[in-house]
Amino acid sequence: MMKTMDLKGPEKDRLLKELKERGTVDFKDYQDAVQTILDKVSVTGDQALLEYTKQFDGIDLSAKGLKVTEEEVDEAYSLVSEEFLRAIRLAIDNITDYHEKQRQNSWFTSSEGTMLGQKITPIASVGIYVPGGTAAYPSSVLMNAIPAKVAGVERIVMVTPPNKEGKLAAGVLVAAKELGIEEIYKVGGAQAIGALAYGTNTIAKVNKIVGPGNIYVATAKREVYGYVDIDMIAGPSEILVIADASANPKYVAADLLSQAEHDELSSAIFITTSEDLGKAVAVEVAKQTAKLERKSIVEKSLINYGKIILVKDLEEAIDLSNEIAPEHLELCVEKPFELLDQVKNAGAIFLGHYAPEPLGDYLAGPNHVLPTSGTAKFYSPLSVEDFIKKSSVIYYNQKALEKVKNEVMTLAETEGLTAHKNSIKVRFE
Amino acid sequence: MMKTMDLKGPEKDRLLKELKERGTVDFKDYQDAVQTILDKVSVTGDQALLEYTKQFDGIDLSAKGLKVTEEEVDEAYSLVSEEFLRAIRLAIDNITDYHEKQRQNSWFTSSEGTMLGQKITPIASVGIYVPGGTAAYPSSVLMNAIPAKVAGVERIVMVTPPNKEGKLAAGVLVAAKELGIEEIYKVGGAQAIGALAYGTNTIAKVNKIVGPGNIYVATAKREVYGYVDIDMIAGPSEILVIADASANPKYVAADLLSQAEHDELSSAIFITTSEDLGKAVAVEVAKQTAKLERKSIVEKSLINYGKIILVKDLEEAIDLSNEIAPEHLELCVEKPFELLDQVKNAGAIFLGHYAPEPLGDYLAGPNHVLPTSGTAKFYSPLSVEDFIKKSSVIYYNQKALEKVKNEVMTLAETEGLTAHKNSIKVRFE
Repeated sequence: MMKTMDLKGPEKDRLLKELKERGTVDFKDYQDAVQTILDKVSVTGDQALLEYTKQFDGIDLSAKGLKVTEEEVDEAYSLVSEEFLRAIRLAIDNITDYHEKQRQNSWFTSSEGTMLGQKITPIASVGIYVPGGTAAYPSSVLMNAIPAKVAGVERIVMVTPPNKEGKLAAGVLVAAKELGIEEIYKVGGAQAIGALAYGTNTIAKVNKIVGPGNIYVATAKREVYGYVDIDMIAGPSEILVIADASANPKYVAADLLSQAEHDELSSAIFITTSEDLGKAVAVEVAKQTAKLERKSIVEKSLINYGKIILVKDLEEAIDLSNEIAPEHLELCVEKPFELLDQVKNAGAIFLGHYAPEPLGDYLAGPNHVLPTSGTAKFYSPLSVEDFIKKSSVIYYNQKALEKVKNEVMTLAETEGLTAHKNSIKVRFE
Repeated sequence: MMKTMDLKGPEKDRLLKELKERGTVDFKDYQDAVQTILDKVSVTGDQALLEYTKQFDGIDLSAKGLKVTEEEVDEAYSLVSEEFLRAIRLAIDNITDYHEKQRQNSWFTSSEGTMLGQKITPIASVGIYVPGGTAAYPSSVLMNAIPAKVAGVERIVMVTPPNKEGKLAAGVLVAAKELGIEEIYKVGGAQAIGALAYGTNTIAKVNKIVGPGNIYVATAKREVYGYVDIDMIAGPSEILVIADASANPKYVAADLLSQAEHDELSSAIFITTSEDLGKAVAVEVAKQTAKLERKSIVEKSLINYGKIILVKDLEEAIDLSNEIAPEHLELCVEKPFELLDQVKNAGAIFLGHYAPEPLGDYLAGPNHVLPTSGTAKFYSPLSVEDFIKKSSVIYYNQKALEKVKNEVMTLAETEGLTAHKNSIKVRFE
């Protein structure tokens, strides 16, 4: 299923072009439908939410209400296993520990009558979109909410679409409760994004919206961007595995497949210095795919975007990876730490033979919300930084201002901004 | 010119609504024209740049070329004053010192067979747009390029439109040279943004585009967003001054006017606990405006958006300011440091009677690229952070993975992602 290619000069450019031309959805096709929904939510508020929930999710919540009750949360706990609870608590501990290290403090410096600083404040309120239905991912609750919590965000709101019985996935509710999220609403789609951006009687508006969603949700986030802040719009998932002869083809194949199962648009690329390993991985991929539940998605993803690329050395492998800027990069090589410094562009880097990508998805600690589609050239994983903002602070006393007054006036003058100049001048008349 | 209002209960909501309904330009009106330009640049490259430069800037550069030569930079030095050179060098020192404090380092932690980290890498290449003509601002070169330089960006490219003689403003060229920027192109407008985003034979593409520009430039930045990263799209400038009876009405008026002169859409708001001071500032504003070069802009801005607001105490003033989330906030009060902690939302905060806003525009050190239009609720000043990106790093050895293998598999299983589960499982068969 995976095409193998030998990387030579002219081939490389063609390959890069091909890798970059991955299909993406065109938001423009959805803009009108989404705008209609957003407009209605902004005008009629809760009424629109209830109508759309009836229409799209097949449940009339007008009697029961949109907000999740304490009883529902209690019920959710009775539905999850002890293993799940233990696992989610370990994940929360690890993810919290990692994100605590990202915390930044305000700082101030002073010298000769001046004080400068950078003041850090958490964003006041954040809405987290959590997909519903078959794609109900408790891990997504953790990865979006924990950095907000660590940042000190006061109000964290969760929205997620109910099923036809008006219920939410137990794992998602438990994950939210474990993090202390009390404000949970049964509403999904573009209408949920509208509620978070404009506010309704039931749902007060927030300052920032994060979390993954389908094309309607993503389009709605783009549309409300500016009224509120949003996180990155994520593209399909990607993994790039670089391996030398020390790698186990079974492990490599399994890791490639773990991303291919996400989506038909997902991409799994394998770069190796060993022709034998390339062949063995191809065989393993076919063998393991046959046994997978999501086999048909995996096959399509591999046929479309799967690649095995042979290179002459690891340096060439890393160069190619830096061009591709993958979301997930595994270095399944004998000495991964020696390569780390050469990696310039990647969302998350997994080192050695026992750090498979799913470890990072769930439990190691770093965030699993990562830049896709080559945007690791300029974007970073979701972090505490995304939930704070900074203010510059400037204090000068009279003597300190007098020392630099001529320089400020010269620069204002050069730029033709005489009222700027005047604000210095009046202080010394 | 400035309307005075007493802040009472119902009045407050109306006021906030009014303050937020400031006119903004609709990008949609410019999208078609801009898209045509971008398409042409992406297809014909340099040829399109030369044609549009001839059409919009009135100069044919096909013989002289787009790139600024060393001779032109030398000539620029001969055109600026010694005072200017001294001022710009002081500004560079102060701005560099401040931004050095924003530098972040990669970090790594390890325990029991695991290592986690966050690796910091500078963005490889950045394009800085610098407006031309009457709005040629050397300070803008400093504020956009210095954080990139401190971040370690390897390639910094500057683009700016030439005048009818094919020349650039001397102050802008000198500012660039002082920062070591060698790659400067005479091209402006949407065509310059297209060149930076897609690349041409002369101008290689960049990863991120920053810097202010007119509506065509701003629209073009929005359109190429995704191919490359961009900075914030800045709205019109804003100042909010909070003062108690200790303030000097002359100073307050001058500071309000310094922002009003930027643009007819600029907003200058004054909030005070002292009715007498309110009256005195209104008189001073009228008096000083009469003498200003940019009087007609100032008058329009003040009539449209200027306000003097009386409040009962400073706490109420700060609450209102936090709602407005101004770009620039001056605390012209007796004890500004005591109020600082209550300020939640503001781009830059100026403390006391001798820290006028223009000091921050040019020379104090903090960046003058700040969030506008209330976006200080979720955005920060331009900083070194905007020119780096992070990669998460995860290493586990076999024993460490074995310890958590059941938890990872439980979570993958819960989410129905069996290939994720399998990537752990194969490692322990």
